[in-house]
Amino acid sequence: MSTLDVMLNPKAAAVVGVSTTNPFSPGNVIFRKLRFENQLDAFPINPKGGLVEGQKVYKSISEAPEGIDLVVISVAAKYVPSVMKECAERGIKAVIVVSGGFSETGEAGENLQNEIVEIANSNDMTMVGPNCIGVFVPRVLDTFFLPSERVARPREGNVAIISQSGGWLVERLEEYAARDLGIAAAISIGNAAQTRVDDFVEYFGNRDDISVIVAYIEGFPEGEGRDFVESASSVTVNKPLIVLKGGKSEAGHRATQSHTSSLAGSAEITSAAFKQYGILEAIDEDEVMAYSKAFSFKLQQMQGSRIGCLTVSGGHGVIAVDEGDHYGLEFPQFDKSQRDAMREVMTPSYRDISSFRNPCDLTGSASDIDYERVLDVMLKFDNIDSALLLLLPYAPGISLQIGARVANVAKRYQKTVVSYVPYLGKYEVIIRGFELNGIPVGDTIEEAVQMLNGIRKRSEFLQRMGKLRAEK
Amino acid sequence: MSTLDVMLNPKAAAVVGVSTTNPFSPGNVIFRKLRFENQLDAFPINPKGGLVEGQKVYKSISEAPEGIDLVVISVAAKYVPSVMKECAERGIKAVIVVSGGFSETGEAGENLQNEIVEIANSNDMTMVGPNCIGVFVPRVLDTFFLPSERVARPREGNVAIISQSGGWLVERLEEYAARDLGIAAAISIGNAAQTRVDDFVEYFGNRDDISVIVAYIEGFPEGEGRDFVESASSVTVNKPLIVLKGGKSEAGHRATQSHTSSLAGSAEITSAAFKQYGILEAIDEDEVMAYSKAFSFKLQQMQGSRIGCLTVSGGHGVIAVDEGDHYGLEFPQFDKSQRDAMREVMTPSYRDISSFRNPCDLTGSASDIDYERVLDVMLKFDNIDSALLLLLPYAPGISLQIGARVANVAKRYQKTVVSYVPYLGKYEVIIRGFELNGIPVGDTIEEAVQMLNGIRKRSEFLQRMGKLRAEK
Repeated sequence: MSTLDVMLNPKAAAVVGVSTTNPFSPGNVIFRKLRFENQLDAFPINPKGGLVEGQKVYKSISEAPEGIDLVVISVAAKYVPSVMKECAERGIKAVIVVSGGFSETGEAGENLQNEIVEIANSNDMTMVGPNCIGVFVPRVLDTFFLPSERVARPREGNVAIISQSGGWLVERLEEYAARDLGIAAAISIGNAAQTRVDDFVEYFGNRDDISVIVAYIEGFPEGEGRDFVESASSVTVNKPLIVLKGGKSEAGHRATQSHTSSLAGSAEITSAAFKQYGILEAIDEDEVMAYSKAFSFKLQQMQGSRIGCLTVSGGHGVIAVDEGDHYGLEFPQFDKSQRDAMREVMTPSYRDISSFRNPCDLTGSASDIDYERVLDVMLKFDNIDSALLLLLPYAPGISLQIGARVANVAKRYQKTVVSYVPYLGKYEVIIRGFELNGIPVGDTIEEAVQMLNGIRKRSEFLQRMGKLRAEK
Repeated sequence: MSTLDVMLNPKAAAVVGVSTTNPFSPGNVIFRKLRFENQLDAFPINPKGGLVEGQKVYKSISEAPEGIDLVVISVAAKYVPSVMKECAERGIKAVIVVSGGFSETGEAGENLQNEIVEIANSNDMTMVGPNCIGVFVPRVLDTFFLPSERVARPREGNVAIISQSGGWLVERLEEYAARDLGIAAAISIGNAAQTRVDDFVEYFGNRDDISVIVAYIEGFPEGEGRDFVESASSVTVNKPLIVLKGGKSEAGHRATQSHTSSLAGSAEITSAAFKQYGILEAIDEDEVMAYSKAFSFKLQQMQGSRIGCLTVSGGHGVIAVDEGDHYGLEFPQFDKSQRDAMREVMTPSYRDISSFRNPCDLTGSASDIDYERVLDVMLKFDNIDSALLLLLPYAPGISLQIGARVANVAKRYQKTVVSYVPYLGKYEVIIRGFELNGIPVGDTIEEAVQMLNGIRKRSEFLQRMGKLRAEK
């Protein structure tokens, strides 16, 4: 069991820096979460002692009870070294420093930071931070010092997220919670003084319960960029690692304010390195969401780039093809025998107004059964590697059952199937029908196309590494 | 008063093709909407007579009561010419043909279509369609033949939307309704056999209550593309015309299935023509939403491309700058006197952890008052043309009041101000605080940046035309 296992699943924790006068101080917010939400044995620490939430406040780590395996430190920067030393004396191996005032503030802070790294290293302690918002593991651990009523908590899932920006990470939690997608862990690494992005990438890479790793990275100190991509290479053959690189433009790079951050300097070189090592680079937050959502499902790989598109609105088909073309996805034309095969299974009275080209437009007159049957024919075609389903539930013939019905058809084939359903509360039954049956749903046409593009890019990498599953 | 005025605001309407046996037939759906939602004098027509919804069914247009000024036709294609003739005889000037089975189905349909155009033209009738889902004007008129429980209706506003795809149009209504944005009218023009996109562009161009026109276009028959951009030029000097062109890729063009559609053939030439005539081309549906939302507000024009960015999360600032850079927006550096001026108004205890560069990061410790005061200083700077506000309401110091408070600061200046607030129900008070006070809110960072890009592109066109408002 590594210290990261201990850090992310502690038996008992102490929070240093709990106020007896301000219930909204970060330490108090963290203490309440650990104690009452996560139901941990949690101990508040303040040199003044007293009571917090009816519980005894210990005056120091040294006085605190036995069994603490994680300490969260939220005191002014200058007090952090002495708290760290006490932790070392008690043999504590996992520490999260949420306090700011270190290297991000200049030379004095940098010296303080070096001091705490030295304490951690020489005592075999694993430290996350400083200047971070901490660690979140659904139901288990939540050190985010933002009030619970301000930040939504996603359910448990198989996506791990690591971020150099706390604000960015919080927003992903909101997004996952709103979309009812699950995460396994969210790590705000702050200044990454000791534990770095690559440490977590490697750790999550070895955990079987995690299917996707997402990282937001603004920059690396000299040399660490190379460490990152190299350590990533042992992970990416087994699971997708998605990276959004902030500060790619010159102005954006200046905005990271980190003059030491450089991964060989240019966005092009970074992107090329990512690609070489099988890291899926997302161009923006939408792609982060599209990729992480897609890979959180157990998907078929894509043997090629050829898409069969099934729609009930011609305009949506046109837009999907334009967007797919942008990503290099192909929409092969169906020949007469293919068109006839699809036409034959369509309700006779609507056959003549439907189009069986690619995209195949069943029109607003189509019913669930038409959609199911035509897809069942299309997925047998040798000239497509995957299917893109555009599902507008406005037409009277489409029922809320369609998600589950169509997903059950898709299950019979070894082909990637991705759907688009407008993201509206009233279509939740359709979306869940798809997703609970293994078909990811894009909230926009573009997201569905980006999911296919991500799956294809990953399949290409696996192909290159000789790891693509053979088609059955 | 033009016939389009009559069509979009009729006193009484007839629906030809109402079934006495199937209450869900398109004609019945339309009739119920006109009669019970729009409270129009609406008359159902069916040769068999009888009763529908307790109301007398007239056997033909000829037998129907006096005063009908709009007829909606929803019968099989082959019966449409004779119904059109009856309408002509009754002196009816506005007809919407929702029936399909015309030029979209081949030569026989094309002949039928020519026949109804001839009837309309020789009788001074204005016809929308055929093969369309009709016309929607909030509270006034709704001929969309989709059941009301399937399609949301946006509130009244100042955006007019014209679409060659019914499905695409329906999705915009959903989107506007979900976002509580208003529209003035939505037109599904179908085959555009007589009334074309350019007719509606010109008509909406002359209506003072309409501030923005949005069009989704897949293609034009020979010669009509030129007509379109030229007629647009008289409109675009007065109000923004936003166009999304479907079928720009070769595969997408094939998907439009329209072999006659061509605006000089290539996407590049189309885009260049759009730009020359001041048409704002959106690259995807997200940009359509960003542009139409932005221009539905009365905004300050942008004298240049220089943005001052104010954030409470460094990562969000970095991402906004990367995205702005992509669109050619600039984030000028603030000099020491500017940084000092902002620092001075910040709460003393948080001054030292804030960054007053551009983006200016007030951190998660900032309160409403800090945000207000720093913006008040920033908007006075000569080296920015607009402000981009990134507002993450996770931090305890940010209240739900902040939208209205900050918007009230922005009102004092002649500069474009656009905000980003995560689009979540719990932040509705903030979003409305901004929007009711004239500041458009992007639901993603990208949308906020796209809004600025759209405003800048339009300002550049007005500058070129000598129509940019001088800075006061």
